[in-house]
Amino acid sequence: MAIINGYEQSENEKELDILNLPSLEAQAKEIIPKGGFGYIVGGSEDEWTLHANRSAFTHKQIVPKALSNIENPLTDTSVFGLNLKTPIMMAPAAAQGLAHVKGEVDTAKGVASVGGLMAQSTYSSTSIADTAAAGDGAPQFFQLYMSKDWTFNESLLDEAKRAGVKAIILTVDATVDGYREEDIVNHFQFPIPMANLTKFSEGDGAGKGIGEIYAAAAQKIGPDDVRRIIEYTDLPVIVKGIESAEDALYAVGAGAAGVYVSNHGGRQLNGGPASFDVLEDVAKAVHGRVPVIFDSGVRRGSDVFKALASGADLVAIGRPAIYGLALGGAQGVASVFNHLNDELKIIMQLAGTQTIEDVKHAPLLNIRY
Amino acid sequence: MAIINGYEQSENEKELDILNLPSLEAQAKEIIPKGGFGYIVGGSEDEWTLHANRSAFTHKQIVPKALSNIENPLTDTSVFGLNLKTPIMMAPAAAQGLAHVKGEVDTAKGVASVGGLMAQSTYSSTSIADTAAAGDGAPQFFQLYMSKDWTFNESLLDEAKRAGVKAIILTVDATVDGYREEDIVNHFQFPIPMANLTKFSEGDGAGKGIGEIYAAAAQKIGPDDVRRIIEYTDLPVIVKGIESAEDALYAVGAGAAGVYVSNHGGRQLNGGPASFDVLEDVAKAVHGRVPVIFDSGVRRGSDVFKALASGADLVAIGRPAIYGLALGGAQGVASVFNHLNDELKIIMQLAGTQTIEDVKHAPLLNIRY
Amino acid sequence: MAIINGYEQSENEKELDILNLPSLEAQAKEIIPKGGFGYIVGGSEDEWTLHANRSAFTHKQIVPKALSNIENPLTDTSVFGLNLKTPIMMAPAAAQGLAHVKGEVDTAKGVASVGGLMAQSTYSSTSIADTAAAGDGAPQFFQLYMSKDWTFNESLLDEAKRAGVKAIILTVDATVDGYREEDIVNHFQFPIPMANLTKFSEGDGAGKGIGEIYAAAAQKIGPDDVRRIIEYTDLPVIVKGIESAEDALYAVGAGAAGVYVSNHGGRQLNGGPASFDVLEDVAKAVHGRVPVIFDSGVRRGSDVFKALASGADLVAIGRPAIYGLALGGAQGVASVFNHLNDELKIIMQLAGTQTIEDVKHAPLLNIRY
Amino acid sequence: MAIINGYEQSENEKELDILNLPSLEAQAKEIIPKGGFGYIVGGSEDEWTLHANRSAFTHKQIVPKALSNIENPLTDTSVFGLNLKTPIMMAPAAAQGLAHVKGEVDTAKGVASVGGLMAQSTYSSTSIADTAAAGDGAPQFFQLYMSKDWTFNESLLDEAKRAGVKAIILTVDATVDGYREEDIVNHFQFPIPMANLTKFSEGDGAGKGIGEIYAAAAQKIGPDDVRRIIEYTDLPVIVKGIESAEDALYAVGAGAAGVYVSNHGGRQLNGGPASFDVLEDVAKAVHGRVPVIFDSGVRRGSDVFKALASGADLVAIGRPAIYGLALGGAQGVASVFNHLNDELKIIMQLAGTQTIEDVKHAPLLNIRY
Repeated sequence: MAIINGYEQSENEKELDILNLPSLEAQAKEIIPKGGFGYIVGGSEDEWTLHANRSAFTHKQIVPKALSNIENPLTDTSVFGLNLKTPIMMAPAAAQGLAHVKGEVDTAKGVASVGGLMAQSTYSSTSIADTAAAGDGAPQFFQLYMSKDWTFNESLLDEAKRAGVKAIILTVDATVDGYREEDIVNHFQFPIPMANLTKFSEGDGAGKGIGEIYAAAAQKIGPDDVRRIIEYTDLPVIVKGIESAEDALYAVGAGAAGVYVSNHGGRQLNGGPASFDVLEDVAKAVHGRVPVIFDSGVRRGSDVFKALASGADLVAIGRPAIYGLALGGAQGVASVFNHLNDELKIIMQLAGTQTIEDVKHAPLLNIRY
Repeated sequence: MAIINGYEQSENEKELDILNLPSLEAQAKEIIPKGGFGYIVGGSEDEWTLHANRSAFTHKQIVPKALSNIENPLTDTSVFGLNLKTPIMMAPAAAQGLAHVKGEVDTAKGVASVGGLMAQSTYSSTSIADTAAAGDGAPQFFQLYMSKDWTFNESLLDEAKRAGVKAIILTVDATVDGYREEDIVNHFQFPIPMANLTKFSEGDGAGKGIGEIYAAAAQKIGPDDVRRIIEYTDLPVIVKGIESAEDALYAVGAGAAGVYVSNHGGRQLNGGPASFDVLEDVAKAVHGRVPVIFDSGVRRGSDVFKALASGADLVAIGRPAIYGLALGGAQGVASVFNHLNDELKIIMQLAGTQTIEDVKHAPLLNIRY
Repeated sequence: MAIINGYEQSENEKELDILNLPSLEAQAKEIIPKGGFGYIVGGSEDEWTLHANRSAFTHKQIVPKALSNIENPLTDTSVFGLNLKTPIMMAPAAAQGLAHVKGEVDTAKGVASVGGLMAQSTYSSTSIADTAAAGDGAPQFFQLYMSKDWTFNESLLDEAKRAGVKAIILTVDATVDGYREEDIVNHFQFPIPMANLTKFSEGDGAGKGIGEIYAAAAQKIGPDDVRRIIEYTDLPVIVKGIESAEDALYAVGAGAAGVYVSNHGGRQLNGGPASFDVLEDVAKAVHGRVPVIFDSGVRRGSDVFKALASGADLVAIGRPAIYGLALGGAQGVASVFNHLNDELKIIMQLAGTQTIEDVKHAPLLNIRY
Repeated sequence: MAIINGYEQSENEKELDILNLPSLEAQAKEIIPKGGFGYIVGGSEDEWTLHANRSAFTHKQIVPKALSNIENPLTDTSVFGLNLKTPIMMAPAAAQGLAHVKGEVDTAKGVASVGGLMAQSTYSSTSIADTAAAGDGAPQFFQLYMSKDWTFNESLLDEAKRAGVKAIILTVDATVDGYREEDIVNHFQFPIPMANLTKFSEGDGAGKGIGEIYAAAAQKIGPDDVRRIIEYTDLPVIVKGIESAEDALYAVGAGAAGVYVSNHGGRQLNGGPASFDVLEDVAKAVHGRVPVIFDSGVRRGSDVFKALASGADLVAIGRPAIYGLALGGAQGVASVFNHLNDELKIIMQLAGTQTIEDVKHAPLLNIRY
């Protein structure tokens, strides 16, 4: 264990023997300090939406297809001009130094090793350049929490461009932080600096609560801001935190290169729908004009399948990968992606789908249990 | 602790550090004597409707809106000609001396301090005039349980007028008390006099059960009675305890200045619907002719939002405010209102609503979980 | 306690202080011997239908009506030419000697004292004449399990006529006993003779299981049998155990004077619907041609109200009354009926219904929780 | 107990006193070694589909019919040209030596003794010939997991023909094994040889996991493969593992003599629907062209009834029969079938259905609980 500001960081580097992703939470809880773990695991208010994110996957069922004449299903996919080995990508989760001393650097290594797509957060523990370098040429996206300080935004966009990231993910659903009770109970403040904040006047994030961090971010975001970001950078811009057809159309109208359906893992608007329950409607509104990324609640190969079959082109995971990071560093992250991708392959075979494109056209049932 | 008729009354006066409103119940249970607590917390029969009041809020979901270009949402609202800082008002709950030695006087102070609206109950522990004076000019309503004794009604209406209250809330859903088992198990009798009853022949309420108290009230109430009250007083009259379009139209037809949708916090007709589940239909029937107040089960900012978006103009809380009263007196009440209003503001921001008027026009989903 | 064949029978005779009917089960379990209690309480197979009988009442909700201008609701009703003080009647439950030494004689006394309607079972512990005499002129019905032995049927019908009962309830849903696991686990055999069987060759029932008892009953029952019973007796004949429009129409077509909707308290066909869930459809098919009686799962005043508002003219209870019998003899039975009727009155007042006729026309909602 | 490769096999031979089939699981767990029991009881992933298989039976309800004029219902049925005493058949479950030293030989004896239909698995512990001989002339089917090795397939089909089986069940839903966590947790490998594999190069199955066993099977199966099997053998071929109208029509189009609706007892595609929930749609698509067999989750007489009334001609059980085998050998298996058939008869009587043909035309309700 490394210790920073009194906070113990895992230094594990090992392959994990994973039974399933849900089981990682309890294991990670053993080694991530209480405050950090609470920040990662928690949702907002009474976590109704957080739990709905999981249960919503039972609202649709996969049709087993036995006579489809397929074998060895392939999870390779091509999206945003990138060739990926798996449609499962890393969500741009903040502050991964809470889980591991190497933080996003190790996550990037792990994701690269499985041929996946890494997304960095503005609030990463490691810098854009360091994380990008760790990916060893594998594709990465950079997520931007738009600051009130436009210089800050431009600086980050420039740095991301220099670091070679392939696209910007502009998060728009966190103009204020959701009411996260676990952080309050734990009096949680980030013990570890956020590398992208260190060069700016507002400080490096260490010793602040998430509310203070978000306070530096712009609260007022509209289609004009999206368009301004798009006009500034020549990287494609994907808008994250979309849960309605209306916002999806605003984003596409503003020139977004992609729509990212997410309710921030149940951490923002509690009392909103499960993210999976709005995916199909948003995807229908987008209507193939741009790719759709989905996250919030994904833990099983069958969840990935259902999301793809409901309109997603990529499916992101956050917490399970961070647990893998805590438990095994880069190798642990790779183990998580490999395990989930293996579950997906089994489902693909049993549903008679050879390719991710087949999955996207697979029928789902809507029986209520 | 003060002791009256052997009953221990809290004398707390302090600001509360509130995690959330539901957590107050267990804290209040520690300091409110068993009989009084049972009277406050209990519902009728097997409390199916009481619990449905809470679960019904999950029947609708708030649509997160990220590109709405808003910040610093405002909870100010104007209704019944009053300018309020929050759409959350105090329900006219009875006998608050059960929770605190100062009773409604402290509640009124607390509500006034947050710029909210106070409603007094006929069965208040403190008198109309005392409670009104405590509000320091802030708006108050007076709730009337119509007595069989018309002199009593007129006297209370006159006194309310003199005390400067802004409107009358006429409760019509308590012509007999619901079958409240907790009161029966506790052999509960009011240990504390009800100030508005002391000058009348039927006694001051102390040493009586709720059934006996209600027995003095009129059982037979119809549109004519509503009209008679309206004709007697020149204050606006809001009819409380409406759960159907039919009753709402009767009330409006009789000249009511407002409709108050409530099932009395699950304390009256058990086996009836959750109050939230009828709000939209009642509001549609009212169709904006008069303002709509809603209560029963509200504990979260998201609940307030959903009620406003379903047709309510004001949203009342009862039990949580009384728990705040027990735990912290006037300051405790203020803490409760402030906390809930803060939760509401977060939801407003994340739902892209700048004003209460925006909230009233916000879309809700109807996914069943 | 009296002891017969090693079985302890309650001799309690006292008024009961009842909180609610569900709470009686645990109390009765303390004093009714295990085998007898299991026979009374149990349902068939895994008791899914038994539990559905209770939960189904939540499928409909009572509309609170506050401006209906009524008071002192009356539960008097007139049906089958009888004037009753309550629409709640005693179901024709078998072998009440299992609960109390006086058996049906005490039940009849208790029901008579509240102005209710008593129904005797073919398998009563006491004889038709004795039970009838105990009723002291109050109305009673006699329930017939049709025997393979036609002489037996005629003899019972004759005896019932002589004893002055007002109608025959012909049970048709017990041509074989449901698979009741509790009886099997307990190796239950009736320890107490069934008075109406003692004079017939097949023995008096004592020392037999319910399967053996039913074996003497006719398995093959059709509209012709109903018509034959109707033609034999000049008493009105009500057909019990109807759960479909089809059977209801057969019964009415055969000349039945009433239709009794029941799934035998969840003791016969497990996997069938809750009785309450079919009541409305059956009542609509009957269309007022004859009165409808309902039972299975009734425990609350709100249940009675919902059943009446769904098409029932009378609502029967079985187990709760037997528990009352065990706990308090005739007075205990009266306490049960009085309590349930009091709960009903509260609901009637709060739903704005003055009379049972009003209840029958009261609207119900169909919100799913 | 017999011991093979360190694995303890039951040698019980006795009639069982069965309360109900679900209760057998806990009893069998006591005597079947952990790894074997886990293999038998487990489903895939988080077992959502496994549990849905059970709960789905509550999605439909049986209509009690009391005036149907029937008695002594008969469970005899004629299907595939066979006269059977019961519509309940033995599913082609693998590796029954895990439960009993005699394996499928005892199962075949037990099923034959009740006049039922036995299905052997490719992965039986005993050989086709031995199992067939044990059936003493009673009808048997042989289930084929199609191998990549066509010689192997032909050899098994030839052997099945020689052994006198009446039809081939071609399983198509196991082209890869579902993600069965219990086997992984237990590091389960088959301790007992699979008789039909011993003569082939890939070994006898002992010491392998289910994944390795399945690896020898064909992954790529389409209508052409079904047709090729049909053309090779002159036995009727039933296609097993159908969960959609599409696959059913493929199978019928390829010349299948029957369609077997199953999700492999929740052991393959987790996240798919309950098998019972797709039965009606598949049966409607088949439209009587060929018989329909159903399995997955059947434990109660009411389940069998509901499956028959939803379009099945035969209803198979797996796990409960294997538990009966472990607990009582051939007699135990017979006890299980007799018990379930007895439950079915009770339901048939109470639903007014004289014959299995009547059951197939019985109405079901669709009330959601």
